[in-house]
Amino acid sequence: MTPYEALESHFRDLSHLEHVEAILMWDEAAMMPPGGGPGRAQAMSTLAGILHEQETSPEIGDLLEQARGSADSLDAWQRANLDQMWRCWRYATALPRDLVVASQLAAMTCEQTWRRCRPLEDWDTVRPKLEHLLSLKREAGERLGEAEGLSPYEALLDTYEEGLRPDLVARHFADLGEFLPGFLEEVLERQRRHPLLPLQGPFPIDRQRAVGVELISALGFDFDRGRLDISHHPFCGGVPDDTRITTRYREDDFLPALMGMLHETGHAMYQQGLPADWRDQPVGDALGAAVHESQSLLMEMQVCRSRAFLDFAADRIRKGFGVDTADPAWSRDNLLAHHTRVCPGYIRVDADEVTYPLHVILRFDLEQALISGDLAVSDIPDAWDEKMQSLLGLSTAGNLKDGCMQDVHWYAGLFGYFPTYTLGALTAAQLFATAREQVEGLDEAIRQGEFRPLVSWLRTNVHGKGRLRNADRMLNEITGHSLSTEPFKQHLRARYLAD
Amino acid sequence: MTPYEALESHFRDLSHLEHVEAILMWDEAAMMPPGGGPGRAQAMSTLAGILHEQETSPEIGDLLEQARGSADSLDAWQRANLDQMWRCWRYATALPRDLVVASQLAAMTCEQTWRRCRPLEDWDTVRPKLEHLLSLKREAGERLGEAEGLSPYEALLDTYEEGLRPDLVARHFADLGEFLPGFLEEVLERQRRHPLLPLQGPFPIDRQRAVGVELISALGFDFDRGRLDISHHPFCGGVPDDTRITTRYREDDFLPALMGMLHETGHAMYQQGLPADWRDQPVGDALGAAVHESQSLLMEMQVCRSRAFLDFAADRIRKGFGVDTADPAWSRDNLLAHHTRVCPGYIRVDADEVTYPLHVILRFDLEQALISGDLAVSDIPDAWDEKMQSLLGLSTAGNLKDGCMQDVHWYAGLFGYFPTYTLGALTAAQLFATAREQVEGLDEAIRQGEFRPLVSWLRTNVHGKGRLRNADRMLNEITGHSLSTEPFKQHLRARYLAD
Repeated sequence: MTPYEALESHFRDLSHLEHVEAILMWDEAAMMPPGGGPGRAQAMSTLAGILHEQETSPEIGDLLEQARGSADSLDAWQRANLDQMWRCWRYATALPRDLVVASQLAAMTCEQTWRRCRPLEDWDTVRPKLEHLLSLKREAGERLGEAEGLSPYEALLDTYEEGLRPDLVARHFADLGEFLPGFLEEVLERQRRHPLLPLQGPFPIDRQRAVGVELISALGFDFDRGRLDISHHPFCGGVPDDTRITTRYREDDFLPALMGMLHETGHAMYQQGLPADWRDQPVGDALGAAVHESQSLLMEMQVCRSRAFLDFAADRIRKGFGVDTADPAWSRDNLLAHHTRVCPGYIRVDADEVTYPLHVILRFDLEQALISGDLAVSDIPDAWDEKMQSLLGLSTAGNLKDGCMQDVHWYAGLFGYFPTYTLGALTAAQLFATAREQVEGLDEAIRQGEFRPLVSWLRTNVHGKGRLRNADRMLNEITGHSLSTEPFKQHLRARYLAD
Repeated sequence: MTPYEALESHFRDLSHLEHVEAILMWDEAAMMPPGGGPGRAQAMSTLAGILHEQETSPEIGDLLEQARGSADSLDAWQRANLDQMWRCWRYATALPRDLVVASQLAAMTCEQTWRRCRPLEDWDTVRPKLEHLLSLKREAGERLGEAEGLSPYEALLDTYEEGLRPDLVARHFADLGEFLPGFLEEVLERQRRHPLLPLQGPFPIDRQRAVGVELISALGFDFDRGRLDISHHPFCGGVPDDTRITTRYREDDFLPALMGMLHETGHAMYQQGLPADWRDQPVGDALGAAVHESQSLLMEMQVCRSRAFLDFAADRIRKGFGVDTADPAWSRDNLLAHHTRVCPGYIRVDADEVTYPLHVILRFDLEQALISGDLAVSDIPDAWDEKMQSLLGLSTAGNLKDGCMQDVHWYAGLFGYFPTYTLGALTAAQLFATAREQVEGLDEAIRQGEFRPLVSWLRTNVHGKGRLRNADRMLNEITGHSLSTEPFKQHLRARYLAD
């Protein structure tokens, strides 16, 4: 066995432990009864410790050194695989085991506490848990940063999207921060001239689910290798051959659950489409969070909120809810108006694509200050309110549930994740613009409910490539240039200000 | 830290890995889409290898030696805990890691294959997988037996119920084999004189579930620390604070699903009632499979098929299915007759308590021959048919689905498990007879739907004791004597031949 082959075998075992972790994380969010929480947090932290032990076994270090010395004999996939192994090793060895175990325990305990406290707006109970978790994450950022020559926040961001730096994020966000407010006003002004007809509920949950299943199956979600369930916070988890998406339902409105399903299906299609030849190897994984979000947002925003998609879907939605097809509220155009409604609101996950980046900018600013120590946890509510007022003109004073307690991320220790949503939106717009150039008749195919041309293009260019090249090289190869805000802005103009 | 304390810490980590394994096993049976099977089998076998590595770490061996040398300073619980740790260590170190990993992979692969093949009666596809699995299990039995001074089958049986020996099983089974045929004829003769009124379906699944949830909640199943789902083969899994039971529904008959839920609730109450002070330690686990089955059968057979229980439950069942309460088919007596219907059939899990031991005797005989090598896998179908004819007067020739392909056990590698069902039935009868003597007004409480006196007696005597003493000592302490067939026979006579 060559050193490289020995590494493949090691990393296969590691990926099995990650498989175990992924299914248990899904279970914790979608299935576990509340009483199971404390024991689960203990079990998962022990597992994290064992995974870390395996990742940092000195044998891997030796093998990496040998394999990197003779990398010339490897093909491109193997070399990329070796690079990813090297990265895993560096990140794992930068952290002591105790910190990994303590972080996992703190993250799960804090998230479980948040889940209980959010409906009660009980900030005082969750606050100390978040403080403890933040201190551990800050320490992790410091140690990773030291090892990689990055600042703590840079290092955390890099764990979610390799090579992504806060200054690039800040540059794009400044651009959007300049563009969006004026654009938003124009859109709102236009919308005032075209009032929406309300869609009358209630919408029984089993019908919402059935409509969702029909549409996501049409997109290509493979139920033989996946599931759809309910969770507090929608997500896509599991592993490529067992991909689990979740949504959440409310009976008075079907759009949040449906758009949630379509969004998670974008993630799922990416995961299910990863290169089968590289299962269980680091190079067979998805690229970082920004590219993952680009796949969900390409599906949700670019495809499923388009007129072409509604030409296909409107009739299925009407049938699914058994409504009068002649009712003008259920016309394609009124449904499209609902799908593309722009309205500044409190909740990020319910936000339209125009105001969404403003929610992200808020979180990006605050989490950098949290990691640097410039902002204390106890000051989050006020800082949140202030930012909401300046960015979206809304106050969250006295409304923690829809303010700083709305998102699971920080309570689960995911500092550095938020920016990837908006980077994903930019990437999605850039990729989809290219897809429309390269795939002949793409809009017409979507109108016919024929998604294979799009999926096949994504499989070839994105999904099937795993981590063969990083996000920037991928974008350059496919679209001819690095990430830019232009395609996103063009998309917004075309969708919200044209005709 | 004393050596004993260091061991507690080690075994806490081991129990966390077992927690992980338990939830994933449940998931595999109740949630996993079929396409996830091969990857899951790989992941679980890697996990089994890591668990084995941790169980056999030389450090544990050293600590055990030291702690056993100074066991005098420990209290009774700690000493029992140390004994259990010692047993874990002996059993784990008797097996090489490769065999553990290969067995887990073979068991999951074979079970997944069985699941696919059973409806198709595709014996030829599953047979070679079973042969491979059997050869690994035989090797495990040999190695365990060598280490413990037992025969291979003895050793396998001992893994499911510590101290249980095949010759004791054989003695009890010979007794039952003598008693049951004549008894069965008498019961069948009596039943012919009291024809059943059929219960007219269909019974929608959501209603079956609602009735079940109402009844198992009344028994004391704690949904804050548990779930109820659907699986191919009903079981109780998970961990004490997250106990997961499953059932399966058919629309033409509600009794199999309902009795399945009540049965699994008996297991679940045991698991949820294990001593909280000893969570994550071997002494805090349940005793072996026979005692576990005694708890499910005590609940299902002794309690829930009794007249007293139906005095409480009949009305809830009628309301749950919205039937005419004056309909004589739905009278308490006719429902009771359904609950206690005796009828030789093909399927073990659907069998009444009179014929059930005959199904177990068949499997006990065949699996001993399989492990000893006297019976080849390819000869199972014929041997099964022959035994069914002699024991139950039914032929399974050409009916593999309801013959040797009906049970998951062998296909999951569980050789040595079957006898514990009937040992459990005997134990249940013996325990319940004592409970009725010791708990004043027990029948009347059950009639009122008041299960706390019974549960509290079980908590005190069985559940809360964990593995403080073995099954035989437990039975002697509670009932004054070792396991006997007499209470079971008395129970059968009282239920089926009295009045």
